[in-house]
Amino acid sequence: MFAIISEEGMARRGELTLPHGKVQTPVFQPCGTYGTVKAITPDRLVACGTQMLLGNTFHLSLRPGDEVIRQLGGLHKFMNWDGPILTDSGGFQIFSLGDLRKISETSVVFKSPINGDQVTLSPESSMRIQQNLGSDVVMVLDECTSHPVTKPEAARSMELSIRWAARSKAAFASGLANSVNPGASLFGIVQGGMHDDLRLQSLEGLVEIGFDGYAIGGLSVGETKEEMLSVMHNLLPAMPKFAPRYLMGVGTPGDLVRGVSMGVDMFDCVMPTRNARNGYVFCRDGILKIRNAKHRLSDLPLDESCSCYTCQNYSRAYLHHLDRCKEMLGAMLLTEHNLHFYHRLMSELREAIEHGTFGALATELLKSWEEDYEFN
Amino acid sequence: MFAIISEEGMARRGELTLPHGKVQTPVFQPCGTYGTVKAITPDRLVACGTQMLLGNTFHLSLRPGDEVIRQLGGLHKFMNWDGPILTDSGGFQIFSLGDLRKISETSVVFKSPINGDQVTLSPESSMRIQQNLGSDVVMVLDECTSHPVTKPEAARSMELSIRWAARSKAAFASGLANSVNPGASLFGIVQGGMHDDLRLQSLEGLVEIGFDGYAIGGLSVGETKEEMLSVMHNLLPAMPKFAPRYLMGVGTPGDLVRGVSMGVDMFDCVMPTRNARNGYVFCRDGILKIRNAKHRLSDLPLDESCSCYTCQNYSRAYLHHLDRCKEMLGAMLLTEHNLHFYHRLMSELREAIEHGTFGALATELLKSWEEDYEFN
Repeated sequence: MFAIISEEGMARRGELTLPHGKVQTPVFQPCGTYGTVKAITPDRLVACGTQMLLGNTFHLSLRPGDEVIRQLGGLHKFMNWDGPILTDSGGFQIFSLGDLRKISETSVVFKSPINGDQVTLSPESSMRIQQNLGSDVVMVLDECTSHPVTKPEAARSMELSIRWAARSKAAFASGLANSVNPGASLFGIVQGGMHDDLRLQSLEGLVEIGFDGYAIGGLSVGETKEEMLSVMHNLLPAMPKFAPRYLMGVGTPGDLVRGVSMGVDMFDCVMPTRNARNGYVFCRDGILKIRNAKHRLSDLPLDESCSCYTCQNYSRAYLHHLDRCKEMLGAMLLTEHNLHFYHRLMSELREAIEHGTFGALATELLKSWEEDYEFN
Repeated sequence: MFAIISEEGMARRGELTLPHGKVQTPVFQPCGTYGTVKAITPDRLVACGTQMLLGNTFHLSLRPGDEVIRQLGGLHKFMNWDGPILTDSGGFQIFSLGDLRKISETSVVFKSPINGDQVTLSPESSMRIQQNLGSDVVMVLDECTSHPVTKPEAARSMELSIRWAARSKAAFASGLANSVNPGASLFGIVQGGMHDDLRLQSLEGLVEIGFDGYAIGGLSVGETKEEMLSVMHNLLPAMPKFAPRYLMGVGTPGDLVRGVSMGVDMFDCVMPTRNARNGYVFCRDGILKIRNAKHRLSDLPLDESCSCYTCQNYSRAYLHHLDRCKEMLGAMLLTEHNLHFYHRLMSELREAIEHGTFGALATELLKSWEEDYEFN
């Protein structure tokens, strides 16, 4: 169930009710690829503002296997996370395998990068896997085309994705009785490459089938920022108003602000966590590279405006030292800070929509970040 | 200040008062080599029962440098640890460098393993470094001879260590005014290899100089368990009763029980933390190897008798999965469990001494572990 609490322009402040709890939107979901958000415990995730996680069907089905997780009571219990979990369908990762996979009308066959085994993923098996995991939000299996691609190829792929979406819905419905998490939602995924007409056609096909929410897939795949924004600009106004909208795999803080301004409700991205492990820190006024020698003697926190555990307790000098010594604690503390940064941004955007100040805040944030391409 | 609260045989239950707080003894100190106990935050250290940490003079003087730490307010503030810190003198690490170091009456000169620079460590510079760090317990610089070694060589080395201990004390006293932590204690270190007479001579020399506590160095260097226990058996009864006794770099859970039974008050070792990162888990009934395939489907906690965060929230199957995927969270959760195991053991030993049941508990524990050489 999705309720819109307030609006400002296209931006929406909502509440998504899922079996494992309510989620305030717009929301950012950290990536818990292998059943853990890397380098952070669930209690610290809660402390830094995480409401909902993403789990990866592709990774978890290979290790430890979705049947193992089902036997152990589902992904929530397995990883000790009581909040909602959204699982992707595995499509994106499989299509990233390039020549290692082969697509047919029925399914996609690929070689496991773990042990070389031949694995088949179909809309039906993706639903079964996600239901074994006990996901709160299940995603349909879609084909993600590479970029750039010809229009006929984008059209063929998008049409296949619609047929797979219909099969996903049928399989999802038939599997509900055996699901670890019977109240789960199912989201469709809009494809169509960078072609506005194909995107609208994809959306129409999905709405006809009918889903609990609609995602925008196939962005952040190598297109320019302008191409991405153009697709969103054309697509979002056509999306069903009273269903949650999820922009998959995106993105920078600037992308989040722009997405919310166009009416996106949900995001996920490895950016805050992966960057943390590489020593790149999100701060109010841009990216801070903790490896930089200028932090060697600095007793400042990473970000003086930040209330996270890391900024309340540690200096840049200490974090620089941990990075130089390759100490795990460095990755742990920077991960917590970067996630706190993302969650705090979303919290500020939500509050601004409620108070009718979102437009001003968005303008101010985007202006202050425009020099920093990594934020944009 | 050290107060003995109760005794049972040679075992003592005491309280050590240091500038950063009181420590209940016997105590185990986790190793915070580079200003972090690897893979765990200070608040989790407290949660799993840590009272006091060890910091490494050798490592910290090279990275980030003790002057850097002094400028940033000392090691406690730098690493966000408010409890007591003991620092070793750097001797043990330097003597482990083998051919890379050269010892004279004045000092030891070695090549930095970080950047190849020539570095000199003397009793005077070791005191300055430890005082820059702001240690609660400063250790004298000693020479650690390798094992095995001839008796004349062990005697020569032990005598040098006594002269260095006297210089350490003089330098420590003269540096107090400039120390980050003016109320710090200074401990002497008994050497003498595996020779009982040399050990007693070393102790006598140190007691004559006078220290706040006395450590046993040069054990756990490759000798047999019997040799180690024999040295302790002969030495400990001769040690000053009303000063804390610290067995350096030791050891297994069995070593801790035996040490306490002979009157040791303080221990440190990398065992719980390093083993955790390698997937070796301390449990009541022995070592559990989390990598073992038999844990793949086990929904048991690591140790059913354990109340640590890891055992309260995670299955062996999950920890096995994290280990297989080389996820940092695995090292984090096993580190917390292993430290909790060590601290809980010490807490049980303390309680048993107070209740006069230590002898029985020690016998029971050692008997139950006698099959497991890694515990002994």
